[in-house]
Amino acid sequence: MTRANDVNAWQQKAQAQAELALARVLPPENETPAGLHQAMRYAVLGGGKRLRPLLVSAAAELGEADADAVAQAMAAVECIHVYSLVHDDMPAMDNDSLRRGKPTCHVQYGEAAALLAGDALQTLAFDVLSRPTGLPAARQLRMLQTLAQASGSLGMAGGQAIDLAHVGLPMSRHELEQMHSLKTGALIRAAVALGALACPDISDDRLAGLDGYARKLGLAFQVIDDVLDCEADTATLGKTAGKDADNDKPTYVKLMGLAPARAYAETLVADAVALLAPFGSKAGHLRGLAEFVTTRKN
Amino acid sequence: MTRANDVNAWQQKAQAQAELALARVLPPENETPAGLHQAMRYAVLGGGKRLRPLLVSAAAELGEADADAVAQAMAAVECIHVYSLVHDDMPAMDNDSLRRGKPTCHVQYGEAAALLAGDALQTLAFDVLSRPTGLPAARQLRMLQTLAQASGSLGMAGGQAIDLAHVGLPMSRHELEQMHSLKTGALIRAAVALGALACPDISDDRLAGLDGYARKLGLAFQVIDDVLDCEADTATLGKTAGKDADNDKPTYVKLMGLAPARAYAETLVADAVALLAPFGSKAGHLRGLAEFVTTRKN
Repeated sequence: MTRANDVNAWQQKAQAQAELALARVLPPENETPAGLHQAMRYAVLGGGKRLRPLLVSAAAELGEADADAVAQAMAAVECIHVYSLVHDDMPAMDNDSLRRGKPTCHVQYGEAAALLAGDALQTLAFDVLSRPTGLPAARQLRMLQTLAQASGSLGMAGGQAIDLAHVGLPMSRHELEQMHSLKTGALIRAAVALGALACPDISDDRLAGLDGYARKLGLAFQVIDDVLDCEADTATLGKTAGKDADNDKPTYVKLMGLAPARAYAETLVADAVALLAPFGSKAGHLRGLAEFVTTRKN
Repeated sequence: MTRANDVNAWQQKAQAQAELALARVLPPENETPAGLHQAMRYAVLGGGKRLRPLLVSAAAELGEADADAVAQAMAAVECIHVYSLVHDDMPAMDNDSLRRGKPTCHVQYGEAAALLAGDALQTLAFDVLSRPTGLPAARQLRMLQTLAQASGSLGMAGGQAIDLAHVGLPMSRHELEQMHSLKTGALIRAAVALGALACPDISDDRLAGLDGYARKLGLAFQVIDDVLDCEADTATLGKTAGKDADNDKPTYVKLMGLAPARAYAETLVADAVALLAPFGSKAGHLRGLAEFVTTRKN
């Protein structure tokens, strides 16, 4: 079990790095406007698996990555993810009261503060990613393009719009995959790409191969999300369990059944890992994260 | 009156350029997710003074600006402005139903769509500004930094947070100016800076001088906003008149009285114009815009 322990130790170290990068880029709680900064820090810090920053970190091991660019990308991608959670949890969207085991941002600070905190977290992501690093400026612009396109109306926000438009309506498996490929897949792919782009020497061929891995992984992540929503209890999940089923949302479990959904996720992860073969031992932590996606409990 | 007519003709041309730049960067209405793209286009197109894009365009005349960078900056700064209007109008914030003479975005499309449209417009701003231009990449990164810092929790979003925190509470003139310097001033300053930064040959000294102009102009703009909120009717304004007074919000008119507030704005504009002296005739349209700010009717 040494290998599993090694992966676990690396994950803890990378999570701590993510936490540090986020704590550093978020304005201090006592800086004006203090209420807004408190809400931002509450939403971001002290919770979450940090899967996207971990993917940035693991992909950055494929080359000689610029350390500042990696830290910035880890923080930026998580700021985008958390802003989307804060807004998705609001009454106008999913109306959820529990996230990462705590009251959601709007329950804790009110709707206006949550709306603004989400807005400011999105801005912070692009602020952070445009700060000076050791990378060529053109590469940093490409990283900004990557994050922006993954986050906007043709990426994450678009997926959320499709999701909302289909509540209570039937959705084919193809439509469900299209929706998830935007809603969660786009940002997971961006995280992997950002880590690789922090390596000045990465080739477009390698980026394309990695993107194949990230697509499979993103889909597996969503399938397992549906499985956990059905299997796990609220305390383990840290968010309201059974919510998607209750909300009449289409899920893989509803479409396929529980055991076939889990088997499908495992096949996707195996496919994802197979796509890492050309990267050899440098892709060890990307492999570990793929396995983590299907073994996670929340 | 030739000079006023010239300024007017230039404004119309620059407004048309802004409209075109925005129509081009916004995804088509029929592109999936169509509902989201309709809401985004509804919120952005066919309305507004386009003051911020006009400031970008006027400031870009100070040097040999890159045309693509100017068009991108005009669109980006307006996307940020409109996203802030869409979110500020929502029930959780100012709860307004009229904007630019039309129903607000959430009245027309629902709260969830308005929330997402605002989110995606912010993303689009940074997407657009990170696309390739003829400028050096390092300059484009600086433009992205400028826009992000002006928009976030230490800029526009922070000003909105301070505003919300003071509804019904007394505010000194100093506090009122601090709030407005963030809420509207920061983005007006960014617009002027972005136009100038699109000129590869602009010096830091000149940027600093211009920023003095933009600070005075931003404050004058807000003082006149308070005057118009008090003087004009809803049809002329295109948004609900008397709203700030009714909402128990601090305004310059309440603090100073109507005529002194207008006189203060005129002094600020004169000061702003005086700071343009070193730029000579190239600053003609920046001068014209400063005068427009005090003579506008909405």
